Parts: sequence; structure tokens; C-alpha cells
Amino acid sequence: MRTLLVIGIGTGNPEHMTMQAIGALNRADIVLVPRKGEEKAELAELRLEICRRYLTDPDTRLIEFDLPARDGSMPYREAVDEWHQAIADTYRTLLERHTAVDGKAAFLVWGDPAFYDSTLRILERLRDDPPCRIEVIPGISSIQALAASHAIPLNEVAGSVHITTGRRLAEHGFPDDAESVLVMLDGGLSFDKLELDRFEIWWGAYLGSKDEIAISGPLAEVAGKIRATRAEARERHGWIMDTYLLRKRSGNLSS
Amino acid sequence: MRTLLVIGIGTGNPEHMTMQAIGALNRADIVLVPRKGEEKAELAELRLEICRRYLTDPDTRLIEFDLPARDGSMPYREAVDEWHQAIADTYRTLLERHTAVDGKAAFLVWGDPAFYDSTLRILERLRDDPPCRIEVIPGISSIQALAASHAIPLNEVAGSVHITTGRRLAEHGFPDDAESVLVMLDGGLSFDKLELDRFEIWWGAYLGSKDEIAISGPLAEVAGKIRATRAEARERHGWIMDTYLLRKRSGNLSS
Ligand SMILES: C[S@@+](CC[C@H](N)C(=O)[O-])C[C@H]1O[C@@H](n2cnc3c(N)ncnc32)[C@H](O)[C@@H]1O
Ligand SMILES: C[S@@+](CC[C@H](N)C(=O)[O-])C[C@H]1O[C@@H](n2cnc3c(N)ncnc32)[C@H](O)[C@@H]1O
Repeated sequence: MRTLLVIGIGTGNPEHMTMQAIGALNRADIVLVPRKGEEKAELAELRLEICRRYLTDPDTRLIEFDLPARDGSMPYREAVDEWHQAIADTYRTLLERHTAVDGKAAFLVWGDPAFYDSTLRILERLRDDPPCRIEVIPGISSIQALAASHAIPLNEVAGSVHITTGRRLAEHGFPDDAESVLVMLDGGLSFDKLELDRFEIWWGAYLGSKDEIAISGPLAEVAGKIRATRAEARERHGWIMDTYLLRKRSGNLSS
Repeated sequence: MRTLLVIGIGTGNPEHMTMQAIGALNRADIVLVPRKGEEKAELAELRLEICRRYLTDPDTRLIEFDLPARDGSMPYREAVDEWHQAIADTYRTLLERHTAVDGKAAFLVWGDPAFYDSTLRILERLRDDPPCRIEVIPGISSIQALAASHAIPLNEVAGSVHITTGRRLAEHGFPDDAESVLVMLDGGLSFDKLELDRFEIWWGAYLGSKDEIAISGPLAEVAGKIRATRAEARERHGWIMDTYLLRKRSGNLSS
């Protein structure tokens, strides 16, 4: 049986790599590295930097390949389904071409594979034919990089933490059952849909990287600064990845 | 100014340590290591093992100390408040005794400091007098170790993830706004309060360690096995740490 090593690599700081991740990288016969394509150059560069720094086994081969593109003309759901199938087919071909039937292939996943990443769902499509073993190595997620940057716990004492997307926040508002809400995948600062007065925010972009930015404070006071900083940084880099924690202003705000 | 390095060390596997955490450990002048006390021996042992493996700077000193005990005779909230203050006072004394005014001290935190850990709240009590800089190094949390063990993403496609405690689950039931609910700090399998038929579960104990156990399936089918396994393991080890993910059975269950 082949082993598919799904390795969390952290969010932009090569030192987010765990000893377990470095071990897995060196256990692999091949590391699959997508060429830039649709992706930001920085993301592709981080994968190569990680291999340069930590790959010491001379038998591990880097296999660069082109990721299939998503069909922009199709309805979103169908397009994603077809796209994931195309990636799964590409992986299957690469595995057959470059690994023995009991070989090991590594997939390097941004952050942690458990949070808003499709690699595990794509590998589900090929794991049974022929049967493969999937081994996941956790990595530092942007959620943790945000909390570390602000030096805060994500939960209030014995409280809950709700992790959601910008789209859901915009559609459903601030969830009832949660004190602390962590927002990812937000294309356009959906907090603007909330009553700014009622919340505190801890925002971060490019977390973990040398370009990290962090801003926090009462939402009504810092929203303008976040909007301006975000627009300027996005313009300068050509892309942005940001995430933020929101809390109702009542209760223990500072910790 | 002193620097307080709050280092996430993962959940029982010394290889959860990141390169950044290893770097921080070696940057420290002292590492504060609580003696066993109330804690499980395994937790104290992991801290020492991490220092043995990764501490290469001969100038870094391990400072073992006794953690103050919590006063069991007081009401819970007051007892915790007094206890945290006593720990903060202990830290302050140790910092003054063992580090220069611009020295660096490391605190080794189980999992990630951002999830259900009091270290940052305790350090808030001493950070201003004299002023200190707090630097957080994220670590692999039990949440991620659970997902890795089961090789699953925590969220459904574009879905939310609600992280909560056993007590809140027992009191409030399964939250309305979430598809995926991650339960920590559960003294007694609070899922038993739910309608078992409606949920799928991914459970894990001692995650990351060599004693790791993982069980998953429709809750009604596997609840008995989890109860029995948990009771037996707890008896054998003298303690248990477990966590689980619950999902409603409608929708995409397998990924
Ligand atoms: C497709 S998800 C991948 C998440 C990733 N698996 C993780 O664990 O962080 C991408 C989203 O994660 C967040 N994100 C990822 N990297 C980030 C970074 N370095 N700084 C801020 N947010 C980041 C952003 O919200 C972004 O929209
Ligand atoms: C005080 S909290 C600390 C959490 C820690 N900061 C983290 O990031 O995992 C302790 C709770 O975390 C969970 N936990 C910690 N380590 C675990 C492990 N190795 N296996 C399963 N659950 C664990 C359990 O739910 C336990 O009750």
C-alpha cells in the first residue's frame, strides 16, 4: 500500500515546521510541489524554502507539477467538484509514475490540514483505488498564528470559540452561542455588516511571515485603520490573507 | 525589559515541537519547570524530555519550582482567582531571583497557549510591574492532534467549527449555528446528554502520545465502546485527557 503523508507546514514562517513534519518530509520518496499557477508566488516559494532547509534525505525527490485550473464558466459547486476530481486524477497519475506500490508521497499543506483545506477531501477520492494509507501531520494554523501574534488566548475563561467564514458572518451575523468568533476566508471584511460598537477585534494579515501585520482594539475605533491598512497592503503585495477574532464588548475583554 | 516566552509544546509527542519553539527554548536564560505536584507525572515528564532533547544552549538553566496549590475550601471562582495570583507571585519571585532585568524566561505550555490554558491570563497579572514583553510561540493543540489522528478536516465544506467545553455542551446542548462541534475539558462524556441517533463522533484520548486511542462512527453505535474504553484507560493510567468532534448526521458525514 502507498502512504500519503499530508503535512501541515504552518503559515509562512519556515520555523513553524514541527520535528514530526521534518521527519515525515524525509520519510517520503517524493514530495509533490505544485508549480505556481493560480497560487501566490509566496506560497509556492515557502514550499521550496522548506524543502531546501529541512530535506536532508538525498533519496527524496521533489516532483513539480501543474495543478489543473478551475473552470470559471461553470456554476461554482460543479466547477469545484470537477476541479477536485481533476486534481485527484493528477495525483493518481503522479503516484503511479513516481512511487512504488508501497511508496510514500508527501503533500505540503498551508497551515494545518484540518482547517479550511481541501487536500484531505481530494485524497478521499483516490484513497481506495488502489488502497492507500493517509497519515496526517498537524501544523501551525493561521488561527494559532493570530492568537500568538496578539499574545491572547482564543477563548474566554471556560468559554467557547466559534470558527467561521467571512461569508457566513455576513449572512448569519454574530452567532448566538459564542463569545469568541474567529473569521477566516473573508474576501472583504464582513465585520462591516455588524454593529461596530458592540465588538472588540484582533486582526492579523500575513501572519507568521516577515510581513505580518496585527491590529487590535474596540471595533468601532480600529475598523477604519484595518480597512485602510488592508487595502494598502493588498495593493502592495498583490494579494492578502487575513483573519480576525471578534468578541462582544461586555465581559472580560483583555484576556 | 524582561521577555516572557510562552511556548506551546504540543500534546505528548516531543516531535510536536516546532523549530520556532526549539529556537525560543534555546534563547531563554531560564526555563521554568513546575515540579509534579497536582499534575500528572506524564505531563511533567514531557517537559523534561523536551529539554533533554532540544535544549542545546549550555547557558539556559532549568529552574524547577513548586506550583502553589488551589484552595479547595473556597468557592470555585475565588479559589481560581487567588490561585492564579499566587502563581503570578511565584513567577515574579523566580524571575527576580534568576533573571537579569533584560533576561528571558520560558514557560512550556501543553498544546497551544491559545486554547483553554491559563498561562497568558496569569502572566497578564505580572506583565506591568515591572513591565515585561510577552512573546507567544504557537504549538500543536489537542484539537489538531484529534483531526490528524482521524485524518479528517474539522470543518465541512465552507462550514463552521464550534469549540466548546463538556460542561457547556451538557448545559446548552448542541449549538444551533454549528455543524461541527469540538468538545474539550469534558470530565464525563457529556455527549450522553444528546440524542445519540442524530450525531457522528470522532473521539480521541492521549492524542500525540504512544498511548493514543481513537474511535469514530455513528454516536449511537460507538458510544458504548467509547464509554468502556475511556473507563478502562482511565483506570489503567490513573488519568485521562480526551476530546471529540461531533457532527449532525445529515449532510456530508465522511469528510
Ligand atoms: C484556504 S484557508 C487555509 C487555512 C489553513 N489551512 C490554516 O490552517 O491556516 C485560507 C484562509 O486562512 C487564513 N490564513 C491563512 N494564512 C494566513 C496568514 N498567514 N495570515 C492571516 N490569515 C491567514 C485566511 O483567513 C485565509 O483566507
Ligand atoms: C486545560 S485544556 C488544555 C488544552 C491545550 N492547551 C491544547 O492546546 O490542547 C485540557 C483539555 O485539552 C484536551 N487535551 C489536551 N491534551 C490532550 C490529549 N493528548 N489527548 C486528548 N485530549 C487532550 C482535553 O479535552 C483536556 O481536557
